[in-house]
Amino acid sequence: MKRTVAILGGGVIGGGWAARFALMGWNVRVFDPGAGAEAAVRAMLERARAALPALYDVALPDEGRLTFHDTISAAVAGAEWIQESAPERLALKRKLYQQVQAVCDPAAIIGSSTSGFTPSELQGCATRPEQIIVAHPFNPVYLLPLVELVGSQKTDPALLDRATDLMTGIGMNPLKIRKEMPAHVADRFLEAVWREALWLVRDGVATTQEIDDAIRMGFGLRWGQMGLFETYRLAGGPAGMKHFIAQFGPALDWPWTKLMDVPELTEDLIDKIAAQSDAQSGHMSIAELESLRDGNLTAMMRSLKARGVAVGKILKDHEKTIEPEVPDLMAPMVTLDRQVPVDWVDGNGHMNESRYVQAMSEASDRFLAWIGCTPDYIATRGSWFTVENHVRYLAEVMIGDRLTATTQVLEAKGKKLKLFYRIECNGTLAATVEQLLIHVSMATRRAEAPPEDMAALTQAIAEAHACHGVPDAAGATGRT
Amino acid sequence: MKRTVAILGGGVIGGGWAARFALMGWNVRVFDPGAGAEAAVRAMLERARAALPALYDVALPDEGRLTFHDTISAAVAGAEWIQESAPERLALKRKLYQQVQAVCDPAAIIGSSTSGFTPSELQGCATRPEQIIVAHPFNPVYLLPLVELVGSQKTDPALLDRATDLMTGIGMNPLKIRKEMPAHVADRFLEAVWREALWLVRDGVATTQEIDDAIRMGFGLRWGQMGLFETYRLAGGPAGMKHFIAQFGPALDWPWTKLMDVPELTEDLIDKIAAQSDAQSGHMSIAELESLRDGNLTAMMRSLKARGVAVGKILKDHEKTIEPEVPDLMAPMVTLDRQVPVDWVDGNGHMNESRYVQAMSEASDRFLAWIGCTPDYIATRGSWFTVENHVRYLAEVMIGDRLTATTQVLEAKGKKLKLFYRIECNGTLAATVEQLLIHVSMATRRAEAPPEDMAALTQAIAEAHACHGVPDAAGATGRT
Repeated sequence: MKRTVAILGGGVIGGGWAARFALMGWNVRVFDPGAGAEAAVRAMLERARAALPALYDVALPDEGRLTFHDTISAAVAGAEWIQESAPERLALKRKLYQQVQAVCDPAAIIGSSTSGFTPSELQGCATRPEQIIVAHPFNPVYLLPLVELVGSQKTDPALLDRATDLMTGIGMNPLKIRKEMPAHVADRFLEAVWREALWLVRDGVATTQEIDDAIRMGFGLRWGQMGLFETYRLAGGPAGMKHFIAQFGPALDWPWTKLMDVPELTEDLIDKIAAQSDAQSGHMSIAELESLRDGNLTAMMRSLKARGVAVGKILKDHEKTIEPEVPDLMAPMVTLDRQVPVDWVDGNGHMNESRYVQAMSEASDRFLAWIGCTPDYIATRGSWFTVENHVRYLAEVMIGDRLTATTQVLEAKGKKLKLFYRIECNGTLAATVEQLLIHVSMATRRAEAPPEDMAALTQAIAEAHACHGVPDAAGATGRT
Repeated sequence: MKRTVAILGGGVIGGGWAARFALMGWNVRVFDPGAGAEAAVRAMLERARAALPALYDVALPDEGRLTFHDTISAAVAGAEWIQESAPERLALKRKLYQQVQAVCDPAAIIGSSTSGFTPSELQGCATRPEQIIVAHPFNPVYLLPLVELVGSQKTDPALLDRATDLMTGIGMNPLKIRKEMPAHVADRFLEAVWREALWLVRDGVATTQEIDDAIRMGFGLRWGQMGLFETYRLAGGPAGMKHFIAQFGPALDWPWTKLMDVPELTEDLIDKIAAQSDAQSGHMSIAELESLRDGNLTAMMRSLKARGVAVGKILKDHEKTIEPEVPDLMAPMVTLDRQVPVDWVDGNGHMNESRYVQAMSEASDRFLAWIGCTPDYIATRGSWFTVENHVRYLAEVMIGDRLTATTQVLEAKGKKLKLFYRIECNGTLAATVEQLLIHVSMATRRAEAPPEDMAALTQAIAEAHACHGVPDAAGATGRT
């Protein structure tokens, strides 16, 4: 039974929420009276389909149903989460909550995407103030996991815990903010940088392009994986944070920022910024820029996922909750079900030959874990090393395609294990791989018979799979 | 003939410069009177060896010689670039320049790593003020390409151009700052964020860990690939930058930052930050954190390099300048020479089986480009698609290992091309691959004979390679 979310407001942020919930298997009910809102949200979901599933090495849950509704009461019917992403006008938001609370489930959580207002401000005229919290995400919402959760003194901590669990369930990384404050935490940093940038452009110190490069070629990369304090801890060296503050602290007294002063937003300054931004990015449409950004973010996030750190840890932890269950091993089984991510493509515009082997290697890892060769087993006992692969490439595979693999055990004898993979792409056979492995001791990293229980299991599987016959393409490995 | 750089000051920044120059083939002469400086710089070079070469898919130039000198005059002898990374005390830096200028080549460029001082301040008491500029890098200097180049009114633009070329040559991305200003550009942003962060910690809104997460799970990732303005251009949607400023501009009047006010750095505040930072990162040593950071940055930067955008474009452009020249194709030739990057390892702690194929695929791309199958040819005519691979895994390969491949043409007949690769790791045969390719039309994506000149060339190569015999392991492909 799918869960239901109501999305109030279908702009860049609301649409991003809708896309993430839908891709995580929730039914999504959208209310946005604006013309073109439905088309925009559907376009957003389309973009998200090309990006979010690629962060995972398993298939996501079946997509939820996306529907659009003319009234608030229809949109919030059955919703256990109601996300408001209306324009940043307090009166408008308050009026919306009154309408919502007249019809919604009193147990539902109403989250606001507000960048600036505090929960106390939002709760001002509400029927049930304790139902409303800040749940502030970051664009693109379907990729970036950060969501700032903020309650007021009227907020029940249990409700925040429930919100945390629910957000974690759709792959977000909720950050509970300890005290309410205008702009919460992250946007205060953005606002500070924005002010300084306006001065630098106004005073002709740097253009928008130069400022962007000053960010993305240096500290932006650092901040994609460690934040401010951990980065500075490193700058301080072995002497630690105290040393760093002693060294860097004095700069606080120097006039290095102009930040409480706000440059006047004259027509001239606005034109200057717009013209510089056009010169920098005007050759690409917004849709092209979005696609570029999503591809970049996906690739960077996947690179951290492979390492299991920073945002990659959030992804890995979430992936564990949607891993497939162990199937019946006594018949050829599905060992891979995933989308082809953007970084698997090569100069020919299709999935690179090495990625077929990577997909097979992922399938192999999963099968081996099922027969007991888990990370723990590898750390303490042994593993299976590939000694030979024979790959036939039968069809091209493109970004976003759904890739599945079935594994058949051809042979399990002593230290040897021979597996055969059929890799399908959208239902067509795209490749076969014959893989020859030997069991090794991880102490010596040399061949060694597997433990008796593992050997007995693999032999039983090989015998059970034998009735499925030897594939025509088999037999190319183990000859030398 | 190697070029020479003098490094004055061997701390985190000076050591990073030394490591980058040495790995890019420069002889590096270090002056740092501090105890332990030599050991620290050597350790930095060791870390850099594990990271910087992994950003490139070709081998870097032969490493330059790293030497340590007791006097400034010995260190700057023969140096065409002199990089000063002394502590941030103006009087100290000025005195150093006087000593340097008494002995250095007047045509050499003296770059200062200063975070805060302007070039005019640095040039104050100099013999030849026009010789001194700001060249401000970002930690770790051996990975992040950004360097802010700043001159004063006394600086010859031609000298800044020369500095730009030289920095580009060692893989940096020089940003010429248009007007001198305390803290240049990027550090003004860092200072603004730092001030805001101190308030948030002091006021108990968030801990150092929470602030770091607020950065690295959200906007930090965005800023690793697009900067502030391009990101906001997207937020503004198709209406563009003007719309965004109109929408977001009003927030400038709200009290979202506390930035000109500086919180007093009381013992209490320093202790609070240090304690929170210990709780967050204290379980890892600085060396472990550095290794974690370098691995993360390398992986993220490589993911953008594969896409050829943002920092990845800097890397690609630089790589083109150190690409190997086309060898004699009429003998089996070296088609790959590279270091194994951090992201090629798997759960067994060694290079994953798919990465052998990726290395082979890179070698294949290079060979195919040499016979005329260039990106331009692929875009307009045809390409070679792999239909079968037979891989024998003969030795484990670890992160940082040097990987080379030689390619032998076994067969070139009609649409078919059969190649054989010997992949060596540190001189040991680690794998062989037999690769069967067919030529395709990129219009139909179906098999089609290659153009006559390409066919003639591949046949001539196959005939010339025939005298090297057929490898024992050959013959596993093309049977089905």
